[in-house]
Amino acid sequence: MIEAQQVTIKKYGAAQDMLMETVELDENLSTEEVLVDVHYSGINFADIVMRLGFYKEAPPKPFVPGYELSGIITKVGSGVTDLKVGDKVMAGTRFGGYVSKVKLDQKLAIKLDDSADLKQAAALPVNFITAHIALNEFGRMRKGDRILLDCATGGVGVIAMQMAKSIGAEVIGLTSSPSKKEFIESFGVTAYTHEEFAKTNEKEFDFILNSRGGPSLKDQYDRLAKSGKICCIGVQAAITDGKTNIFKFLKTILTMPRFGMVKNIMNSKMVGGFNALKYFDDEKWLEDNLKALAQAPYQAHIGGVFAANDFASAHETLEQKKAKGKVLLEWKH
Amino acid sequence: MIEAQQVTIKKYGAAQDMLMETVELDENLSTEEVLVDVHYSGINFADIVMRLGFYKEAPPKPFVPGYELSGIITKVGSGVTDLKVGDKVMAGTRFGGYVSKVKLDQKLAIKLDDSADLKQAAALPVNFITAHIALNEFGRMRKGDRILLDCATGGVGVIAMQMAKSIGAEVIGLTSSPSKKEFIESFGVTAYTHEEFAKTNEKEFDFILNSRGGPSLKDQYDRLAKSGKICCIGVQAAITDGKTNIFKFLKTILTMPRFGMVKNIMNSKMVGGFNALKYFDDEKWLEDNLKALAQAPYQAHIGGVFAANDFASAHETLEQKKAKGKVLLEWKH
Repeated sequence: MIEAQQVTIKKYGAAQDMLMETVELDENLSTEEVLVDVHYSGINFADIVMRLGFYKEAPPKPFVPGYELSGIITKVGSGVTDLKVGDKVMAGTRFGGYVSKVKLDQKLAIKLDDSADLKQAAALPVNFITAHIALNEFGRMRKGDRILLDCATGGVGVIAMQMAKSIGAEVIGLTSSPSKKEFIESFGVTAYTHEEFAKTNEKEFDFILNSRGGPSLKDQYDRLAKSGKICCIGVQAAITDGKTNIFKFLKTILTMPRFGMVKNIMNSKMVGGFNALKYFDDEKWLEDNLKALAQAPYQAHIGGVFAANDFASAHETLEQKKAKGKVLLEWKH
Repeated sequence: MIEAQQVTIKKYGAAQDMLMETVELDENLSTEEVLVDVHYSGINFADIVMRLGFYKEAPPKPFVPGYELSGIITKVGSGVTDLKVGDKVMAGTRFGGYVSKVKLDQKLAIKLDDSADLKQAAALPVNFITAHIALNEFGRMRKGDRILLDCATGGVGVIAMQMAKSIGAEVIGLTSSPSKKEFIESFGVTAYTHEEFAKTNEKEFDFILNSRGGPSLKDQYDRLAKSGKICCIGVQAAITDGKTNIFKFLKTILTMPRFGMVKNIMNSKMVGGFNALKYFDDEKWLEDNLKALAQAPYQAHIGGVFAANDFASAHETLEQKKAKGKVLLEWKH
């Protein structure tokens, strides 16, 4: 047996209520497994929602959150052919990502180049897959599309800006903070704060990626072009201070607009949303998409790297929107 | 002045309540106009809805319905360059299509080959544009997509089957009548009656084109794949006997499912709909798309051709679903 560390959610609540635990890991591998020293674990907004107790599909407590990680292989099972000790890998995990060591099926450990940046590799999977599902699956984005990114400076937004620009879309990115506009513009994207945008007459969008939910949906719906689609991936409007503000959360959920079918027909529009993490259930799909990611040119913006012991600060940084881009936990070996 | 005939809706109600009128038409043309002897006028389901008084955007009574026609040019304005007397043309009109003669802006009279079938030309515009918006604009259909056509034997369905098959989609078509299944299969499309389909386990659709509205939406929503879209273009469920059954109509409208945004996020799905006729307002869009249609290989299925005087039978045939495909009015010259 070997020792590993993990961050566990034992009770719903504040970031400080999570727990760093040491656990025993059987180092014997099945034929198809690899053992990985995790270097970085990505933090996602969904982790915060489940820490607060609002994520319906989270496992029963106690559980380890985390959807993505990167690291270096330290041992391989007897049937593993394409990976070897010392290889850099990344993985999408369905929970259980906040760990210092992990066993993975060889298909789910995506090999990286030796020169790969392990921070990037831990930062990209969920955001890439989310941006990909939104823009390429729901939006089926084409050159010339007018695309609005509601939270352009978040982890998903940063990848979505790159994806949309690379295909030749006309992109507008929003942010809550005036100081982040320059960052958006550095991608060749037109930037507004949410407040500024509300006063503009920008409309005729073919696709809107909305991350805030709540009242922003209604305003943005009205800005869609004919045949336009609005795709909601979160309810960030519900969580601003990281405290268990159940009233604000429920109010945001309960007041989400419904956009009846008759209204959609009258307006020639389409509305929907998704939870990227549910796509992780399809291992073949996940494998194919992460392999595509390993070859893709996208760069995550790393907003913060926290020592794993400092998980509480990492969560707070994300939930209080203190950082642009991705927040990571770092495990030392 | 010259005489022309038109079919007018003077009061809401049964098909027989429409009126054939003779009107005077000033044969002087402005520089950009052409005068057309209309040979065929297409009938659409929306015409029935507005005859019944349920079409919010119809003009005030009395008005002439009709969105599409074909015919032969009998006179051209002094500034018309690309069209001449004797040319076959088709047009999309926003109301006013049930007429024996019509003046059109030259841009909106789409030139056809001399060998073109004027029945096809009057039958295609609305159905082609509807199928195109659904499959190519909302669906952005790709090879391998699984596509469900809720009313495959209707005018839109017949074109949608051809479009979807030509791009390499896997298509399932539904019909209310067992006797129409063979017709669907003749397009290489898998056929079920609505009753049969309800008992199947067919799911994982990437795109569903729903024409019936009402309870069918809920069942079909549940059959969507992840990232799947359901697009509703009508409420045929509301109208079955062609009578002004306001209770059934209102019930269908009021019980249309709403698919809240939270539900869509949880299910990773998208819902919407459109009214193809609203796209007719954009003349440049209409011109471009009808020009594309004039070059396209699609064949409408003509379900019935009625002498213009027999407009009541024509409406009844469509509203009672007696015919497959398109119903036309014919004007003799």
